[in-house]
Amino acid sequence: MKFSITVTLKKDVLDPQGKVVQNTLFNMGMNSLKSIRQGKHFEVEVEENDQSIAKKKVDEMCKKLLVNLIIEDYKINKI
Amino acid sequence: MKFSITVTLKKDVLDPQGKVVQNTLFNMGMNSLKSIRQGKHFEVEVEENDQSIAKKKVDEMCKKLLVNLIIEDYKINKI
Repeated sequence: MKFSITVTLKKDVLDPQGKVVQNTLFNMGMNSLKSIRQGKHFEVEVEENDQSIAKKKVDEMCKKLLVNLIIEDYKINKI
Repeated sequence: MKFSITVTLKKDVLDPQGKVVQNTLFNMGMNSLKSIRQGKHFEVEVEENDQSIAKKKVDEMCKKLLVNLIIEDYKINKI
């Protein structure tokens, strides 16, 4: 069973990496760009037939390792 | 107009960062994990009312800066 995890910085957390990308794109002439923020993306495959159990396991992975809950939000989607 | 961009490594490209995460999760006792691959995620806001023009602009950003087309694939979604 495959899931995708999207990890983004919380709204009020500064994103220096995104800022650099934004400035670079602006300097390349992309004037219509309003904002850009960078995050992480994971594709996980879990050996588990029950979807709710599988999702719970992925959620545990997020909480224990993949996501810093103090500054990041995350979303899990079934692929 | 807001878009999300998901950048993933192509299927046959090695993902050492994902491998480290996979080994770590395995050592933490997540035995049901089959595979995990890491990618990038961007949230872009473009000042443009026409959706097809906006999407074209985001696509240009991907090709010119955000994505290494030799080793990476990307997907653009409207949020």
